[in-house]
Amino acid sequence: MTKKTVGVVLSGCGFLDGAEIHEATLTLLSLDRRGVKVVPLAPDVEQMHVVDHVKKAPVEGRRRVMQEAARITRGDIRDLATVKASELDALIFPGGYGAAKNLCTWAVDGVGMKVNGDVERLIREMHAAKKPLGFICIAPVIAARVLGHGVRLTVGDAADDAAKGIEAFGARHVARAVEEIEVDPAFKVVSTPAYMLGPSIAPVSQGIDRLVGAVLELA
Amino acid sequence: MTKKTVGVVLSGCGFLDGAEIHEATLTLLSLDRRGVKVVPLAPDVEQMHVVDHVKKAPVEGRRRVMQEAARITRGDIRDLATVKASELDALIFPGGYGAAKNLCTWAVDGVGMKVNGDVERLIREMHAAKKPLGFICIAPVIAARVLGHGVRLTVGDAADDAAKGIEAFGARHVARAVEEIEVDPAFKVVSTPAYMLGPSIAPVSQGIDRLVGAVLELA
Repeated sequence: MTKKTVGVVLSGCGFLDGAEIHEATLTLLSLDRRGVKVVPLAPDVEQMHVVDHVKKAPVEGRRRVMQEAARITRGDIRDLATVKASELDALIFPGGYGAAKNLCTWAVDGVGMKVNGDVERLIREMHAAKKPLGFICIAPVIAARVLGHGVRLTVGDAADDAAKGIEAFGARHVARAVEEIEVDPAFKVVSTPAYMLGPSIAPVSQGIDRLVGAVLELA
Repeated sequence: MTKKTVGVVLSGCGFLDGAEIHEATLTLLSLDRRGVKVVPLAPDVEQMHVVDHVKKAPVEGRRRVMQEAARITRGDIRDLATVKASELDALIFPGGYGAAKNLCTWAVDGVGMKVNGDVERLIREMHAAKKPLGFICIAPVIAARVLGHGVRLTVGDAADDAAKGIEAFGARHVARAVEEIEVDPAFKVVSTPAYMLGPSIAPVSQGIDRLVGAVLELA
């Protein structure tokens, strides 16, 4: 069996202004355990916010998404703008507010949100090439916005604003527990609630490990 | 069985100037899977460096260890200076250059290094109370410096400068593979090489999970 190559899209480093660190790390762990070659990716843009994670409030200062994301991947990162779907067998998006601030603007614009142009391009390329996509935590809102057309996604609880946003974008929300995943085999899209539900890293790791397994089965 | 409480000492967020993110996250995962109550700790001091993890070089700017460490723990962090051994059943130190820059000065001073006063106090208190300690990656140099007296530790390869430093501090270095741990039952000290050897997150996770298991058995 040829070794598979999977892109992991990071949105910074820290759940309030970047990628959720546990979700990102657990994705890398599941991929490495399965012998997958990982290509860490991030847009080379400025973060929307820098948030003090003790005070949980924005602070002065500027940080770039790709440089901060490289903290999670020990310096191994590529500018997402330079990557084509032909290089990858699958693509996975961990969550964190960074996914909703730096990859799209859901955190501030809700259903009026925009998606980063390179993120949207790569998702469309992967989908056109019938390659699987995985979305963790809040990241399914990006899939809903870009793919729409009834793609089945979960962010956990149907009463959550993000679930309502997913429906508003023309996708379909399915309620799932944190250890569970939602697989849409027609779209080759897999999602899991992770820290949208929590409550802690152990159950989150179960959902993410299942998501990685399902994404690779579709690849 | 009473739920155990374990302190995890973080040194920032990112392996070149703070805590190694995978090692920290995998420690939290292993503890949570075992139903342990985790108390994330960090000294409330300024980082020695801020390092751009793409260029792998120090850059301008100042960051505080505790605030950056809180990124790894989703905002849950306590100032190490306020914590006493009586509150904990065990204490674990993930690695990363932060452990060798912000918890002690091994990265710049080698065998002439100093240990942060609160870190040293808490290690001595734990040791006096016969409570177990775990040291991951480069962190065993701190145990060697504070405890000395032939305590058995590993950083992986005996030819590594850190292994020589451990011997220079009066401790004893034992070569171990990344999946392995070294247990000193008399000192109740456990160590594992992690990213001192690497090469990737899956084998590192095996060593850390074993370390957590051994620490809890001693608690």
